Amino acid sequence: MKTINTWKHDQVFESGDGRSQITVDGNAKEGLSPKALLLSGLAACAGIDVVEILQKMRIEFSDLKVEVEADQTDGQPRVFKDFAMRFILRTDAVNRDKVNRAIELSLEKYCGVASMLGKHASIHHKLELLS
Amino acid sequence: MKTINTWKHDQVFESGDGRSQITVDGNAKEGLSPKALLLSGLAACAGIDVVEILQKMRIEFSDLKVEVEADQTDGQPRVFKDFAMRFILRTDAVNRDKVNRAIELSLEKYCGVASMLGKHASIHHKLELLS
Repeated sequence: MKTINTWKHDQVFESGDGRSQITVDGNAKEGLSPKALLLSGLAACAGIDVVEILQKMRIEFSDLKVEVEADQTDGQPRVFKDFAMRFILRTDAVNRDKVNRAIELSLEKYCGVASMLGKHASIHHKLELLS
Repeated sequence: MKTINTWKHDQVFESGDGRSQITVDGNAKEGLSPKALLLSGLAACAGIDVVEILQKMRIEFSDLKVEVEADQTDGQPRVFKDFAMRFILRTDAVNRDKVNRAIELSLEKYCGVASMLGKHASIHHKLELLS
């Protein structure tokens, strides 16, 4: 896997994999910041797993959102020590345990981003069901 | 720092920080994949540092590109064990040592993304000067 990242000006880079391109901005004005990309990568990685696991379990759901929040440490380098994930989706309340199981399977077993970022940080999650 | 990630279909999520938005696609068709975001985050984080350090050193340069390539391990979860970074920029050849020093300062001291991803993976870099 490879990305090519071209400096445009100030803290702004264009980043692409040869097919898609995004703008990355350390000042978070013209695009997501480099560290925000880690949060998005974690959310999408786990979100994709949850979608696939729920589909395999034949659980009906919709309106899935994954919010990820993390504070940076003081000092250099500034890193994330704790990721707070919130999974929000619409499904029957009877499915709560299975959805939680899908999230845990992702974070503990399948999601490579969670595995990498979780080496020296904790990853917590909450589940909110929409009715 | 926070991102909100909304499932659209298949492996596609829209990800935003309230200001900017990107498409993330596990199949890398409609957007960068979650893991490619880690490569872009690493490249932009280090690239921003290098720009700022070179500017502080009053070294003239242009056309900066940062390529990052990493292979995934087999098995679950699939993670990166080795990041190969290639810094390419146009500057006088006499500046080579200073540019290398700027890259090392970023990767070893300032870049939080490198610190997080480098906990259980190695990060190598090469420098290519355009004349």
